[in-house]
Amino acid sequence: MAKISASIITIGDELLIGQVVDTNSAWMAQELNKTGIWVKRRVAVGDDWNSIWQALDEESRESQVILITGGLGPTADDITKDLLCKYFDGKLVVDEAALANVRHIFERILKRPMIERNLKQAEVPDVCTVIQNKRGTAPGMWFEKNEKIFVSMPGVPYEMKGMMEEVIGRLATRFVLPYIAHRTLLTAGVGESFLAEHILEYENALPENVRLAYLPNYGMVRLRLTATGNEKDATDSLLEEKFNELKQMVSEWIVADTDIPIGQAVGNLLKKTGKTVSTAESCTGGYIAHLITSIQGSSNYFKGSIVSYSNETKVNLLHVNETTLATIGAVSEETVRQMIQGALIVLRTDLAVATSGIMGPDGGSEDKPVGTVWIAVGDRSKIVSRKFYFRFNRERNIELTATNALNMLRQFIAGT
Amino acid sequence: MAKISASIITIGDELLIGQVVDTNSAWMAQELNKTGIWVKRRVAVGDDWNSIWQALDEESRESQVILITGGLGPTADDITKDLLCKYFDGKLVVDEAALANVRHIFERILKRPMIERNLKQAEVPDVCTVIQNKRGTAPGMWFEKNEKIFVSMPGVPYEMKGMMEEVIGRLATRFVLPYIAHRTLLTAGVGESFLAEHILEYENALPENVRLAYLPNYGMVRLRLTATGNEKDATDSLLEEKFNELKQMVSEWIVADTDIPIGQAVGNLLKKTGKTVSTAESCTGGYIAHLITSIQGSSNYFKGSIVSYSNETKVNLLHVNETTLATIGAVSEETVRQMIQGALIVLRTDLAVATSGIMGPDGGSEDKPVGTVWIAVGDRSKIVSRKFYFRFNRERNIELTATNALNMLRQFIAGT
Repeated sequence: MAKISASIITIGDELLIGQVVDTNSAWMAQELNKTGIWVKRRVAVGDDWNSIWQALDEESRESQVILITGGLGPTADDITKDLLCKYFDGKLVVDEAALANVRHIFERILKRPMIERNLKQAEVPDVCTVIQNKRGTAPGMWFEKNEKIFVSMPGVPYEMKGMMEEVIGRLATRFVLPYIAHRTLLTAGVGESFLAEHILEYENALPENVRLAYLPNYGMVRLRLTATGNEKDATDSLLEEKFNELKQMVSEWIVADTDIPIGQAVGNLLKKTGKTVSTAESCTGGYIAHLITSIQGSSNYFKGSIVSYSNETKVNLLHVNETTLATIGAVSEETVRQMIQGALIVLRTDLAVATSGIMGPDGGSEDKPVGTVWIAVGDRSKIVSRKFYFRFNRERNIELTATNALNMLRQFIAGT
Repeated sequence: MAKISASIITIGDELLIGQVVDTNSAWMAQELNKTGIWVKRRVAVGDDWNSIWQALDEESRESQVILITGGLGPTADDITKDLLCKYFDGKLVVDEAALANVRHIFERILKRPMIERNLKQAEVPDVCTVIQNKRGTAPGMWFEKNEKIFVSMPGVPYEMKGMMEEVIGRLATRFVLPYIAHRTLLTAGVGESFLAEHILEYENALPENVRLAYLPNYGMVRLRLTATGNEKDATDSLLEEKFNELKQMVSEWIVADTDIPIGQAVGNLLKKTGKTVSTAESCTGGYIAHLITSIQGSSNYFKGSIVSYSNETKVNLLHVNETTLATIGAVSEETVRQMIQGALIVLRTDLAVATSGIMGPDGGSEDKPVGTVWIAVGDRSKIVSRKFYFRFNRERNIELTATNALNMLRQFIAGT
């Protein structure tokens, strides 16, 4: 079976001056992978005629499928549609379904007057198959040339995602695709190199069609096994076998045996045990609550949070002792333990998490330099507290504190 | 003056299967831009010998500067260093400074045993100039070949960022660079097409070396002017003149006249007016507090937040009326107004923001479908409340609610 590869071309000056982070490509790659199409290259070019043209030429030499996002907006810097029209020798015609969609969006949803350049969004090259955009005004376009498939979609992530289902469906009927499966283990508390050494023999003995990757991220390492095969059942069972071997070898560091956010891993445990949780956050400023509530259904186990960003709030709402704050200070073991006690009573939950630290860039001292953090987790009978020292920037220090707090919560619930 | 262009090559299978979003490229592009180097292309390839080799060949035909990240880890899938050694005809030798750095990190910071493959990280091709990595174990490498400059850096964002200062400094001395300047206006409450129509004549009359871009994002549109020139003062003053014209034309929608997060725009206003703020969050689950506290120095005006993710917490901590919750419901104008009153008293601030809504995918009803949100902002004398209806996924609904809440707060403070 031929391996079908794809290239992703993202278009837009905003990508090249770095004003926008490209999240589309990663999402599209995941979707392509699930369906057995392998992404070979991703290229970003500006809103520039020659650069786009050249990218189309080059990527169609590399891959059978070329997915393009961006450059379809209504403004003058968006040249992609005109270029595609020329590239595929077509002429622009109004697509009636796309026009009805543009009208609908302006009249019913935006309730704004529609102007000429909005109507022009309903024009498409007469040589393409239109992929309707249910979430915006710019239609998608599917072209074929020399056995290659090109699909152009808007750069707005929500609109592109709305179209990908149809695109993936059409691609799946056009190719005989190999079967690709992934399993991912989320680990914490162990370094990439140490893990690699620990499972060296296992890795070297993996069959040809199973591959292991290490994906370090914010104090955690994800281990991803990928199996490729022509036959689903055999590939799945081989992957399952190798994945189970891996799990046994790294069992002490496993956070989850699926690729989920740590907030989801903790949420699953809370649901299973029927316990509720609250957070009392100083330095994380609500970020732990955000990670917990990003998960659908979190209202079943999360009751709320007190973000105590001043000593006054710590005293008034969490009943932290004023003397503790005045003598030992807010960034201390005593404070986070008292914050836990306060949160358990005030927010009436079975469990609580508390953080207090100095995220930077200012606010450090010789005793407590920037990056010093105390985290506590506990219930009515036991509180566990731990000091950390992160040496990164504000954003990453907040992220690391939250990740470690959630991992401590997970360990506390699991009793490890 | 010749225009110096750069290509960014990111290496790693994790980018092609979409398990990691590439944030490095955007950041690197910003830094290159500031120094007058224009990013022409960004390419992502897998941990595959031929793909990397080909990308080096191709991008060195496109650009004078090729920045490479990723593939320098200690594990078997990281082949970049061996490849670069071969590509530039070198042989691997131990770099003493890099070795001392690896030892230091393991002995002093990680406090973990060092293993053979960690020591190998201190090896570099003898044909490169080493860029030391103060934040990790893998050194950066600077190569030159046929008048082109290639720099290889680790894919870990924090480590790459730590090296870029030296890289940018070296590049600045190697080329005579044009001067590039950007100014960005952050607008809210107006669509991209409407704005484009509104400033059409202005845009068409812009001089050749000044360019306007529209960057829509979560209900806001950023307008970016870019000016290029050989002479800094003349370019700056032209940009300033055009930027001021633009500001006057779109004044009613301006959130900020610099490219800052909306949390920063609100923070600046709070600092200026000397007022304090708190949040009472239901559906945003602490995300508004997170956006506010992501900003350095926010403890000067932010005192805290009550995330009331259950009715019980709304009643107990924010004194929302139980009858209101039982009859009209938590997602209502009455509830968010009472949450404001509660927050002002309990958190003792001048201003408060409150949110209550249904973020999805579950929890909607015919009356209050998923995406229904009430937001209120206010002080002791006045409360403003507004109903929204967002039709996106959970993640984006939370983001949009928070952005709109902060924009309402900004308008409330500014008295507009």
